[in-house]
Amino acid sequence: MLNGAAPPKTIIIGAGPAGALVGIFLARHGLEVDVYERRADLRRSAVERGRSINLTLAARGLDALAKADVLDAVMRLTVPLRGRVIHAAAQAPGFQPYGRRPQEVTYAIRRGELQAALLTAAEALPNLRIRFNARCVGIDRDRSLVRLADERTGEAFTAESDFIIGADGAFSSVRPLLQEGRAANYHEEVHSYGYKELTIPAAPDGGFRLRGDALHVWPRERSMLIAIPNRDGSFTCTCILTHEDGVRLSQPGAERDVQRFFTHTFPDVVAFVPQLVEDFHRNPFSQFVSTRTAPWHYRDRVVLVGDAAHAVYPFLGQGMNAAFEDCLALAESLMRHAHDRTRAFAEYERLRKPNSDALDLLSRRHLSALRDQMRSSTIARTQIYDRISWLLPTAWVPLYTLITHTTIPYTDVIARWRRQERVARLVGVDVAVHAYAGLLTLRQLVIGAHQS
Amino acid sequence: MLNGAAPPKTIIIGAGPAGALVGIFLARHGLEVDVYERRADLRRSAVERGRSINLTLAARGLDALAKADVLDAVMRLTVPLRGRVIHAAAQAPGFQPYGRRPQEVTYAIRRGELQAALLTAAEALPNLRIRFNARCVGIDRDRSLVRLADERTGEAFTAESDFIIGADGAFSSVRPLLQEGRAANYHEEVHSYGYKELTIPAAPDGGFRLRGDALHVWPRERSMLIAIPNRDGSFTCTCILTHEDGVRLSQPGAERDVQRFFTHTFPDVVAFVPQLVEDFHRNPFSQFVSTRTAPWHYRDRVVLVGDAAHAVYPFLGQGMNAAFEDCLALAESLMRHAHDRTRAFAEYERLRKPNSDALDLLSRRHLSALRDQMRSSTIARTQIYDRISWLLPTAWVPLYTLITHTTIPYTDVIARWRRQERVARLVGVDVAVHAYAGLLTLRQLVIGAHQS
Repeated sequence: MLNGAAPPKTIIIGAGPAGALVGIFLARHGLEVDVYERRADLRRSAVERGRSINLTLAARGLDALAKADVLDAVMRLTVPLRGRVIHAAAQAPGFQPYGRRPQEVTYAIRRGELQAALLTAAEALPNLRIRFNARCVGIDRDRSLVRLADERTGEAFTAESDFIIGADGAFSSVRPLLQEGRAANYHEEVHSYGYKELTIPAAPDGGFRLRGDALHVWPRERSMLIAIPNRDGSFTCTCILTHEDGVRLSQPGAERDVQRFFTHTFPDVVAFVPQLVEDFHRNPFSQFVSTRTAPWHYRDRVVLVGDAAHAVYPFLGQGMNAAFEDCLALAESLMRHAHDRTRAFAEYERLRKPNSDALDLLSRRHLSALRDQMRSSTIARTQIYDRISWLLPTAWVPLYTLITHTTIPYTDVIARWRRQERVARLVGVDVAVHAYAGLLTLRQLVIGAHQS
Repeated sequence: MLNGAAPPKTIIIGAGPAGALVGIFLARHGLEVDVYERRADLRRSAVERGRSINLTLAARGLDALAKADVLDAVMRLTVPLRGRVIHAAAQAPGFQPYGRRPQEVTYAIRRGELQAALLTAAEALPNLRIRFNARCVGIDRDRSLVRLADERTGEAFTAESDFIIGADGAFSSVRPLLQEGRAANYHEEVHSYGYKELTIPAAPDGGFRLRGDALHVWPRERSMLIAIPNRDGSFTCTCILTHEDGVRLSQPGAERDVQRFFTHTFPDVVAFVPQLVEDFHRNPFSQFVSTRTAPWHYRDRVVLVGDAAHAVYPFLGQGMNAAFEDCLALAESLMRHAHDRTRAFAEYERLRKPNSDALDLLSRRHLSALRDQMRSSTIARTQIYDRISWLLPTAWVPLYTLITHTTIPYTDVIARWRRQERVARLVGVDVAVHAYAGLLTLRQLVIGAHQS
């Protein structure tokens, strides 16, 4: 990229998916890239417990992976999801396609497999090196110098670069060092719901025990179960509970309460999870964490990507996709302003920060949207919106489609959706929704009366 | 308070003004109180550098001190402030009284002297003990047990209690332990302006070099100087600078820039600060920090007061006053619900959290209000509001008066002020302000033309 002169050198802290992908982008553009990762190489050791272990890739993530030329390596690890299956209490499961067009699907992938594929692709580049078991213990931000410690030997060492990228996740150690003593803000939130991970193993024949091309949701008033298929026929389940329930059911000796809770709340799931009580007690009750912060960069020396800059609640499955969008945007800004890195970082932050705030908002509201799936008013609204979208496919695009199947900036998604809803209200859709919801409720009552 | 049974025991972490005052309240109500403070006893050692060293007490703080029966001990350490003097560039200083009534004054006090007086009052109570040089290193929140370390010997020890009060300031160590793994939020902000402390020494005869019963403000576009009198004739000055200016002027070798900056920006102050350049370089460039968080309590075991729960920007001089209101409110809730501490803590948080959020808002806008003092529109508005308040003293109370000279909850202050402004707009005050501001601008131009 620079004729004659030595290429700029960057240090990336964190070799998670975002750190690996931004490294690939920059190495392909000719930079010298050194990646330092605190953990051991997961390709040679067991994955850490208690982490969200499968993710969904959608249009934004796929676009970035394609531009980094790693899409093929990743796609063969995925399971396509064509929609979601809603398991309402006392009703037959209902399938909702994710989109109207065949390409409107998402792809489930194990976090560990995605990370391993990206690490292997990254290490294949001659100008990119990864060192594992190396913890960042300090930064001289004015000289973009990093102090590190080897996690196994304790050996201290330093690394020099032209600039540092913090890709070290929600509890980033780079962020406070970047912001120290400067105008800054940091917001951290732990959701009032937490989760336990459970597993539905594959059927004896290796097949799926539930429909394998869908995400499954069991919405309840004060809890929710989400199951995402894996390539081996199993499902990874996230059991979302209030903090009170999570703590109560995790107490030693609460085995019978756990059994009772599941039999009562998710009776159809119990048969699929033979090790339910053991799994429940072995796995930690984990928290959903959301963070927002500013600034994301320090002069032309330090910059943040992915969860280090913005961790969102995972309910929309967009966190990884937004992180990959960051990586692409940062690489593009750096190419656009190759001789003015301060300007490149500022442009990247100006482009991405409002979008990560918008995704934060969208992710928050999606948990209640999932929970309200079974309300008559939600069903009525969904069906009517669906009909409008079928009649006016370009003028009316469902919110989930805008988020998941396009690369329209999240801020524009919100603006466009508000415009659509305003028009809908003007032409009387709200009245139709209320009337139709009333009919649905009536029908449910009649069916209920027939059944009892 | 409890007949027959042993009195409840509380541990307070932090012996700053808030920790000492809440200790006094609870010890007077019969509880056993143990206070642990990380720092040395400031009555026997030098005060730490770089801290905001004088504060203003107003109605809210005075009310709480009176109810704790320590008002007399504190009042003799104060300097009454009857108003503020605005030093506009190229204009004679203008005095603005803080209120219309003689009791509408505030009281300046050195933080260290206030703290020392409260510590001495606290230690005079037989059921209250303070241990200094004791750092809180951990908490068992379910058993309200505190692990401590002696800062001088390194000796580790534990202390038991019925409940713990975190009064350990803006970067509280109790807060994260209270919230760990639970639904919570935490917001931290560093202002884009920071400050240097400077001193205007007393005149050779021991008197004040500026009017001694007022707070002095030098508002400028990108900086501000505030001076508050001390009992010894000196003034403590806070020189508020943008981060860029603060960093630039603090560089080694920037002595001449500092001199030039002050001569240009605050020419009338330079003569009063003989050690200006030395002082400027010796003192750190400090940050204004604001924090908000929730929850403030854990079951019936742990609760926060003062800056540990909410640190506001100091521009209104209300931080200490709000902290003292917390102490009073917490003590009152504990007395009201002596047998249900969970309810007492929840009530206290419900009462105080919205008010600390409201003060946060008011404090933020006050910096620009101070800066805009010299704008024609501000002068016109102040003078017209003043006239209305004189005509309708009970119907129209200035915002600053509501904040400073009443104990009306901050939330109600905001609501009432918005109502007053709405009425003012309805009756055409805005038009009058614009017209009058135009006249003032014209007059300034005419005077300027005459002078040049």
